[in-house]
Amino acid sequence: MKNIKLLIEYDGTNYSGWQYQKNSRTIEEDLRDAIKKATKEEVSLIGSGRTDKGVHALGQVANFYTNSDIPGDKYKKILDHLLADDITIVESEEVDLGFHARFNARGKSYMYRIYNRNIKSPIHRNYSYHVPNRLNVEKMNEASKFFIGEHDFTAFKVKRTEVHTGLRIIEDAYVERNGEFVDFYIKGKGFMHNMVRIMVGSLILVGLEKEPPGYIKQVIESKDRTRAGKTVAASGLYLLKVFY
Amino acid sequence: MKNIKLLIEYDGTNYSGWQYQKNSRTIEEDLRDAIKKATKEEVSLIGSGRTDKGVHALGQVANFYTNSDIPGDKYKKILDHLLADDITIVESEEVDLGFHARFNARGKSYMYRIYNRNIKSPIHRNYSYHVPNRLNVEKMNEASKFFIGEHDFTAFKVKRTEVHTGLRIIEDAYVERNGEFVDFYIKGKGFMHNMVRIMVGSLILVGLEKEPPGYIKQVIESKDRTRAGKTVAASGLYLLKVFY
Repeated sequence: MKNIKLLIEYDGTNYSGWQYQKNSRTIEEDLRDAIKKATKEEVSLIGSGRTDKGVHALGQVANFYTNSDIPGDKYKKILDHLLADDITIVESEEVDLGFHARFNARGKSYMYRIYNRNIKSPIHRNYSYHVPNRLNVEKMNEASKFFIGEHDFTAFKVKRTEVHTGLRIIEDAYVERNGEFVDFYIKGKGFMHNMVRIMVGSLILVGLEKEPPGYIKQVIESKDRTRAGKTVAASGLYLLKVFY
Repeated sequence: MKNIKLLIEYDGTNYSGWQYQKNSRTIEEDLRDAIKKATKEEVSLIGSGRTDKGVHALGQVANFYTNSDIPGDKYKKILDHLLADDITIVESEEVDLGFHARFNARGKSYMYRIYNRNIKSPIHRNYSYHVPNRLNVEKMNEASKFFIGEHDFTAFKVKRTEVHTGLRIIEDAYVERNGEFVDFYIKGKGFMHNMVRIMVGSLILVGLEKEPPGYIKQVIESKDRTRAGKTVAASGLYLLKVFY
């Protein structure tokens, strides 16, 4: 038996997210169907974690077990041929049987891309979130530093989730302007559902100078979802990398 | 009567180009339908020129005549509400009755965007053309200079077109790398159908070092379409600006 690890890029626009759903097109299902065609086997695909409808990935990781003799590095080409253009296999390789894409993940990094121009952009509409008013990126960057460290991020948690604790470790966070884009980068040991999108909704209030940078510190300490900003659109979110 | 000028951005991916066609979604038709809803009039819309299926625009210009009293600058907001997300009105204004978007155009500039990475990109697939092998951008830029000036561009003309002469004036042309992208910029007094896309197909041969920069000069002088490179995909082409 072989354990195959895939590094995957996808455009989440036309998918109902990663996880298999009856009657919806999902990335997991498209990948599984392609692997089935390649290996002639029913496989379970283990993703590093889910991504929501409309969220993109530049470095999603998944693995599957197979009895097929296809060499691990050949899956890249074989699956690319079987997949639609909005999913690309960046790399495939055979790994140790013990490797598990979800349980072994030590951390993840995300980018959230804001399109910051007075006019909305047809070209970038599915790949960013539009904020028409000029953002103060220096203040947003200053504010983002409050996320770093071990904190109870209950204020950035979807209310109805079943997660027991909001305690998470954030290793790095920053905001930078790239032309018409304002990009937020964050790296951490684990994230809750919608956490990054609520963080960005809060940082935007700082960027618009409706709140000072210290507001982020206050929101974290409040542990109160109603104090944080809104959950911004999925279209701006990119899973960049999974660390093992 | 008022003459209204529109500055338009669009994502050409889901359109069969600018020009009205029965049974196909076109930019002209979507705009005309929106203007009809706003003015309650049947209008003719005059575009600066056509764009093909899949070609994008950051600065298309069009005008129309109307008896409606809607102030010229209000059309931006009104039409944006009526249009799908893949068309945006950047600016609207009332102009002199004599203004004609096509006849008054003194020149145009285009960008052609190449995605130059070994792996194809799901995110950029509709907004660039994928060349997996590393391009020599310095040589492409050197080669692009041969386009500048007044030349007979018959070699870069679609064979079956009815155009009488291939004589055109190119005012500027250059190639530059922007991260994973290689962008070709060109400005000229007029372009033939597919001319920019055949130019890029030829420049890519230089970038891949299959031809030296002087090849472009030879192709121009040959006036022979079979000497030029292939017509590259529409997805990489952007109409940047129309000059008046």
